[in-house]
Amino acid sequence: MAGRDPEIRKDTVTNRWVVFSPARARRPSDFKSKDSANPNHTQSECPFCSGHEHECAPEIFRFPPDSTVDWKIRVIQNLYPALSRDVQLNPSSDGMVLTGFGFHDVVIESPVHAVHLSDLSPSEVAEVLLAYKKRIHQLSFHQSVKYIQVFKNHGASAGASMSHSHSQIMALPIVPPTVSSRLDCMKGYFEETGKCSVCEMSVKDLLIDESTHYISIIPFAATFPFEIWIVPRDHSPHFHEIDSEKAVDLGGLLKLMLQKMSLQLNSPPFNFMIHTSPLQVTDSLLSYTHWFLQIVPQLTGIGGFELGTGCYINPVFPEDAAKVLREVNLP
Amino acid sequence: MAGRDPEIRKDTVTNRWVVFSPARARRPSDFKSKDSANPNHTQSECPFCSGHEHECAPEIFRFPPDSTVDWKIRVIQNLYPALSRDVQLNPSSDGMVLTGFGFHDVVIESPVHAVHLSDLSPSEVAEVLLAYKKRIHQLSFHQSVKYIQVFKNHGASAGASMSHSHSQIMALPIVPPTVSSRLDCMKGYFEETGKCSVCEMSVKDLLIDESTHYISIIPFAATFPFEIWIVPRDHSPHFHEIDSEKAVDLGGLLKLMLQKMSLQLNSPPFNFMIHTSPLQVTDSLLSYTHWFLQIVPQLTGIGGFELGTGCYINPVFPEDAAKVLREVNLP
Ligand SMILES: Nc1ncnc2c1ncn2[C@@H]1O[C@H](COP(=O)(O)OP(=O)(O)O[C@H]2O[C@H](CO)[C@@H](O)[C@H](O)[C@H]2O)[C@@H](O)[C@H]1O
Ligand SMILES: Nc1ncnc2c1ncn2[C@@H]1O[C@H](COP(=O)(O)OP(=O)(O)O[C@H]2O[C@H](CO)[C@@H](O)[C@H](O)[C@H]2O)[C@@H](O)[C@H]1O
Repeated sequence: MAGRDPEIRKDTVTNRWVVFSPARARRPSDFKSKDSANPNHTQSECPFCSGHEHECAPEIFRFPPDSTVDWKIRVIQNLYPALSRDVQLNPSSDGMVLTGFGFHDVVIESPVHAVHLSDLSPSEVAEVLLAYKKRIHQLSFHQSVKYIQVFKNHGASAGASMSHSHSQIMALPIVPPTVSSRLDCMKGYFEETGKCSVCEMSVKDLLIDESTHYISIIPFAATFPFEIWIVPRDHSPHFHEIDSEKAVDLGGLLKLMLQKMSLQLNSPPFNFMIHTSPLQVTDSLLSYTHWFLQIVPQLTGIGGFELGTGCYINPVFPEDAAKVLREVNLP
Repeated sequence: MAGRDPEIRKDTVTNRWVVFSPARARRPSDFKSKDSANPNHTQSECPFCSGHEHECAPEIFRFPPDSTVDWKIRVIQNLYPALSRDVQLNPSSDGMVLTGFGFHDVVIESPVHAVHLSDLSPSEVAEVLLAYKKRIHQLSFHQSVKYIQVFKNHGASAGASMSHSHSQIMALPIVPPTVSSRLDCMKGYFEETGKCSVCEMSVKDLLIDESTHYISIIPFAATFPFEIWIVPRDHSPHFHEIDSEKAVDLGGLLKLMLQKMSLQLNSPPFNFMIHTSPLQVTDSLLSYTHWFLQIVPQLTGIGGFELGTGCYINPVFPEDAAKVLREVNLP
């Protein structure tokens, strides 16, 4: 690797330029998080723990549905929502201001404080994924909801203010910028080739692992070192089309990726995001969008260059990161 | 402020949606950095200090030009450049890969380790700004250089790996995404109104301060809490058109903003970026682009929502942040 020249790559899905600069890095296999995300395991003060349900904002549903103290998953309102379900959507006349209508929910992934998502079994991870699906389905009936973002923050430097394993669901009255640029880019590819750019991704050196219905890869122009995508093999625009069998399959691969990442990179703080399609779609859009789940370990910060340009500097070439993760053996 | 509903605003310059959520914040005047950026002041190991010039990558120029040990500013090559001046620019046939051609320089802003940019006098800050100008001018003769990003990282959580006061200049073979979207957005505004959207910015409640040639404001849809823009009053596409008189005027306002920010927000880590226009421009582009300097204090982290959507959540309304900064009295 030593002496390899820098390269600038553009992603065919996100339309983003990334600068690959091995000169700015240690060897790929030396990458470790300085700032391990395994939080303190005291539960006395945590409102997300079993027995503290009354300290939380209202529950939306739980799983199993008819459980009492023995719930496994709870979907609740966020106590400090970024958007409010109680305001009327009301755009200004020049289109530059909207009232902050939207939904902001929290998914508590386990009743037990010390249990992380990757500690769950594949079918328990599937239950979390199916809770996302169920909530998306409910939210999709609101005409003003245009896009639903599911995401997870794990560890303080990945933004998590709560250490109890959880994820969040935000329903937005706009299609956000990342999604519009992705759709524009995928549309361009489709118009040129007649194909979906995610279906057509070349995975040669980039594959980490695969399951019946999904593959996990490092994308060709990964924005962040060791960023992982889990992608459905078959063309599928919306995450919430997932069924129970696929959810278990995805649960297993997601668990495996989180375990490999933890082991190789020293339990880094991380985020994951489900990149899906807007709710209201045309038939033509359905032919070129394809959902995927992106996992981003927090290993390097950003600085003024990234804030200024929107270009990122990634010190690890994707094919090197994929090789490292492929070769991680779980105990 | 209590109980104010959230709002979603779109910026007419950056084309970015931002969610304003006072429910997620303390009162604007309570905002403080937890993580003050005033670094340790030991200088024995610092290659940027006077007397350690031989530990640095090659010098490009210094100021004053004929100084020896008594230099005030040095512009040097970056020892770990993200882009390489030695590779030939070479795009792949499908346009998705470029060799990593470019320039990556460091501007050492003072010979003394403990001196910050805001400790310099307005005319000394002007000398730093004029060093940027001179280097941009040199780099602009390279045909393959399309855009030049000047930026500063101050404090570890703003990305700085060196605590000695410095900034960086990167010359890129592409027009980066943030710049293209800004230009598209400003072009759209120009086509509709015949005016430059920066010249037309309404600054009513958003003004912090002003000087002969510049104003400082919180932008209407600030991405980050207490983000500040310094904007030339007169229409001006390129930063490097600045002359010595304007540089002193800008130096004074920049110093003032950094001092106010430090005092109010507890010396936060920060970045600043100069947002200018691409080097090769058409006449029509010149009529709608307008450079500005953006200062971003690091007060809140980001999480999966921002990574996923490209939308940001700002807990402080711009008019509140402007009022707070307007009222800071320097000792
Ligand atoms: N008793 C209770 N009942 C119900 N809900 C409760 C609660 N106590 C706390 N909560 C909510 O639980 C959520 C926990 O979320 P996280 O820990 O993932 O990060 P948070 O949203 O705080 O911010 C991170 O993620 C956001 C979005 O990416 C970024 O804007 C931000 O900078 C980053 O720190 C918070 O949103 C909080 O409001
Ligand atoms: N002896 C020497 N001679 C010459 N140059 C020397 C040198 N010793 C160190 N340098 C260079 O000096 C620069 C100092 O820069 P900063 O401290 O502003 O942040 P850095 O570029 O490391 O990374 C931050 O900024 C970049 C760009 O925004 C982000 O990618 C990154 O995540 C963030 O930490 C470094 O680029 C380093 O390579």
